[in-house]
Amino acid sequence: MLEELKKQVYEANMELPRRGLVTYTWGNVSGIDRGTGYVVIKPSGVDYDVLTPDDLPVLDLDGNQVEGRCKPSSDTATHLELYKKYSAIGGIVHTHSPEAVAWAQAGRDIPLYGTTHADYFLGPIPCARNLTPEEIEEAYEKHTGTVIIETFTQRGINPVYTPAVLCKNHGPFAWGKDAAEAVHNAVVLEEVARMARLTEAVDPKAAPAPDSIRDKHFYRKHGENAYYGQ
Amino acid sequence: MLEELKKQVYEANMELPRRGLVTYTWGNVSGIDRGTGYVVIKPSGVDYDVLTPDDLPVLDLDGNQVEGRCKPSSDTATHLELYKKYSAIGGIVHTHSPEAVAWAQAGRDIPLYGTTHADYFLGPIPCARNLTPEEIEEAYEKHTGTVIIETFTQRGINPVYTPAVLCKNHGPFAWGKDAAEAVHNAVVLEEVARMARLTEAVDPKAAPAPDSIRDKHFYRKHGENAYYGQ
Amino acid sequence: MLEELKKQVYEANMELPRRGLVTYTWGNVSGIDRGTGYVVIKPSGVDYDVLTPDDLPVLDLDGNQVEGRCKPSSDTATHLELYKKYSAIGGIVHTHSPEAVAWAQAGRDIPLYGTTHADYFLGPIPCARNLTPEEIEEAYEKHTGTVIIETFTQRGINPVYTPAVLCKNHGPFAWGKDAAEAVHNAVVLEEVARMARLTEAVDPKAAPAPDSIRDKHFYRKHGENAYYGQ
Amino acid sequence: MLEELKKQVYEANMELPRRGLVTYTWGNVSGIDRGTGYVVIKPSGVDYDVLTPDDLPVLDLDGNQVEGRCKPSSDTATHLELYKKYSAIGGIVHTHSPEAVAWAQAGRDIPLYGTTHADYFLGPIPCARNLTPEEIEEAYEKHTGTVIIETFTQRGINPVYTPAVLCKNHGPFAWGKDAAEAVHNAVVLEEVARMARLTEAVDPKAAPAPDSIRDKHFYRKHGENAYYGQ
Repeated sequence: MLEELKKQVYEANMELPRRGLVTYTWGNVSGIDRGTGYVVIKPSGVDYDVLTPDDLPVLDLDGNQVEGRCKPSSDTATHLELYKKYSAIGGIVHTHSPEAVAWAQAGRDIPLYGTTHADYFLGPIPCARNLTPEEIEEAYEKHTGTVIIETFTQRGINPVYTPAVLCKNHGPFAWGKDAAEAVHNAVVLEEVARMARLTEAVDPKAAPAPDSIRDKHFYRKHGENAYYGQ
Repeated sequence: MLEELKKQVYEANMELPRRGLVTYTWGNVSGIDRGTGYVVIKPSGVDYDVLTPDDLPVLDLDGNQVEGRCKPSSDTATHLELYKKYSAIGGIVHTHSPEAVAWAQAGRDIPLYGTTHADYFLGPIPCARNLTPEEIEEAYEKHTGTVIIETFTQRGINPVYTPAVLCKNHGPFAWGKDAAEAVHNAVVLEEVARMARLTEAVDPKAAPAPDSIRDKHFYRKHGENAYYGQ
Repeated sequence: MLEELKKQVYEANMELPRRGLVTYTWGNVSGIDRGTGYVVIKPSGVDYDVLTPDDLPVLDLDGNQVEGRCKPSSDTATHLELYKKYSAIGGIVHTHSPEAVAWAQAGRDIPLYGTTHADYFLGPIPCARNLTPEEIEEAYEKHTGTVIIETFTQRGINPVYTPAVLCKNHGPFAWGKDAAEAVHNAVVLEEVARMARLTEAVDPKAAPAPDSIRDKHFYRKHGENAYYGQ
Repeated sequence: MLEELKKQVYEANMELPRRGLVTYTWGNVSGIDRGTGYVVIKPSGVDYDVLTPDDLPVLDLDGNQVEGRCKPSSDTATHLELYKKYSAIGGIVHTHSPEAVAWAQAGRDIPLYGTTHADYFLGPIPCARNLTPEEIEEAYEKHTGTVIIETFTQRGINPVYTPAVLCKNHGPFAWGKDAAEAVHNAVVLEEVARMARLTEAVDPKAAPAPDSIRDKHFYRKHGENAYYGQ
């Protein structure tokens, strides 16, 4: 079932250690088949060097496992919330990549300081609030997703144009049209987080880039009038 | 004698350079067989690329060498103190990994800033005090162990739930149920130390994570109700 | 056509990922044949691991493509402005290398703090101003070049003796007598940017190196009386 | 002539890129045969990947080349000054390793913050003053050596117990009983410089380690009562 999707999601998971985004098993990637509504995700606690495409469990959007012997990632409920809310998303990734984690632990949005950021994200990377003790108690992983959605809704951010978020005191999620693009965006997020930290090291009072630069770079690469490629 | 344990301790020692935790020979891993009370440890000053399992000396808990031509690590007495006090510990590692050393040299506990930390440690990584000149003179390596024990006792920290410590102006020790888990915890400690430094670079006034987040992440992975795996 | 130049420019482009200066396709190198006035440049959006010398488009200095099926890099107009203005330049490179980007995002020149810098650049690496919204609207990539030229002209900087620039909120360009030297200078720029950041971390009030040291190091390696080589 | 020494010095030079201490050709190692008084040193400007032992020029202590077609490193005169003054030194290395350069560019000694430092150096790594314009004009490389010697003499530092120095606005020199030990000390210096920077990042008011810790670690590894090995 869904052999092609499993292979894509497997490859996207394997890209995490190759790109230096994960230590041990600290990350997970999923992909969705919008036709069936089935989600393929990394199994829980399996090392990357023994993972195979056939190990990947298949679930429906209510979290029922429809195939596979391995238990799905414990973060699965977060992925499902995002897939249910945002129909344009085809792949999601969660990591503990250290530069993004630093901003999440500090509870700060990553400011848009330059064109590397604006080539991929139309504004700051938002940092979602902590869950309340009640939300943690009731359904931690599910509410991690609902708080992400709350953040984008309340702040009026388009998740297709800003395909990443920081969860306070935790770490980043990123997404895209498929699993490969989600991981690509997670790699860019980590690099953008590093550059933003280095920028403030060089000038603690650094200001965000002008809107004109932001829009030029984002829209030369995204949307109808895109012409970009380096 | 203890061929299986020697192999485990050998593999755990070899993991140190693979994970980037050591420069030259700056580190040592040991493991204990609780049945005989014998400890296997890295020999003193031997390069990792010529080390073999048969080079590992075997000692009893009083420090008497019961097998092996090589001299045991000069830090052996520290390991023995910890094994004698904490019966739940099966493996111990000492390194000079730079991010953990930075906190040790600054004499600061590593604050629990987020879930990466809370997935492995139930509170800050404590920094033990300096030895007095008298303690150094009398038995430096042994008292390094007694001061670690003093720190956990006086502060009421459970060493099974916080399996690492910083020794002031020196560096980290970590432990676990066996040598492999000890090294795993040392790798996590180094990553957590890096993330904590980066967090303070992004916000010098960053606050620790809420207790509710800390407990959720620690206990979804440890103890009776654990269900975790990414 | 221009087979040798294509091979040189191809090799210079491939050096970018080998030296760790680029993530994904975030960079481009060009070279010019001054006899014909033709420029060879990286094609737009092609991954380094599938790039071949034959993929490289050839353009004249007015931007007309004279050979090749691939679209030239979207930054081509910037390269052409610099080639037209500075006849001594034979190769140009643009990257988003993170240490140089940090200074560009902070909008600061990189101070000349020592001999590593002075071995290659006779003064601070200048940071060019932002483009105005009108300049962005009219011809973004072309005006990126004209603002670089404005910077060197207004500040009286010789681009042969200081072969690199930072574009505010964007990143670095570097150049040289050919494509290989341009990339060499981009590698040095990134290292010099890192060293300058680390210098200010160690002493936020660090002062630039004395002129006597700067001149000694630059001129023992460049100009008529050069004798340098480590 | 001196085939064994050439091989040792060649291997020590090749260790620099393997240990990540040099970019391009930014470094040089030499060794001396005290019997003949001849010095073997890296040739000037030769890439590490084409270097062979036979390329290494041989000089006497007055700088006369006694063998070899290649020109010796332009820093040769600095090496010769140190060999002439300090008879216990058998090998010398100069690099632009970035963490050590940061302290040199800031003009600061590296404080002795912990045992990693004290295992190799009995006190702070001193930072020598800038050369005067007159010293630069007269004999830059030779006076780089005389200013290093002036620093150790005026401050009463034993160069055998503190085998490294920083030259202001320039970078480090390190030495040892032979070329291999010199490079070993340069690797440690770079790591110690990194740890000291990270220590101050974690606590800008960090204090040096107590003398009792410094002496214990240095003398358990050096001198008559040494017993150390990790």
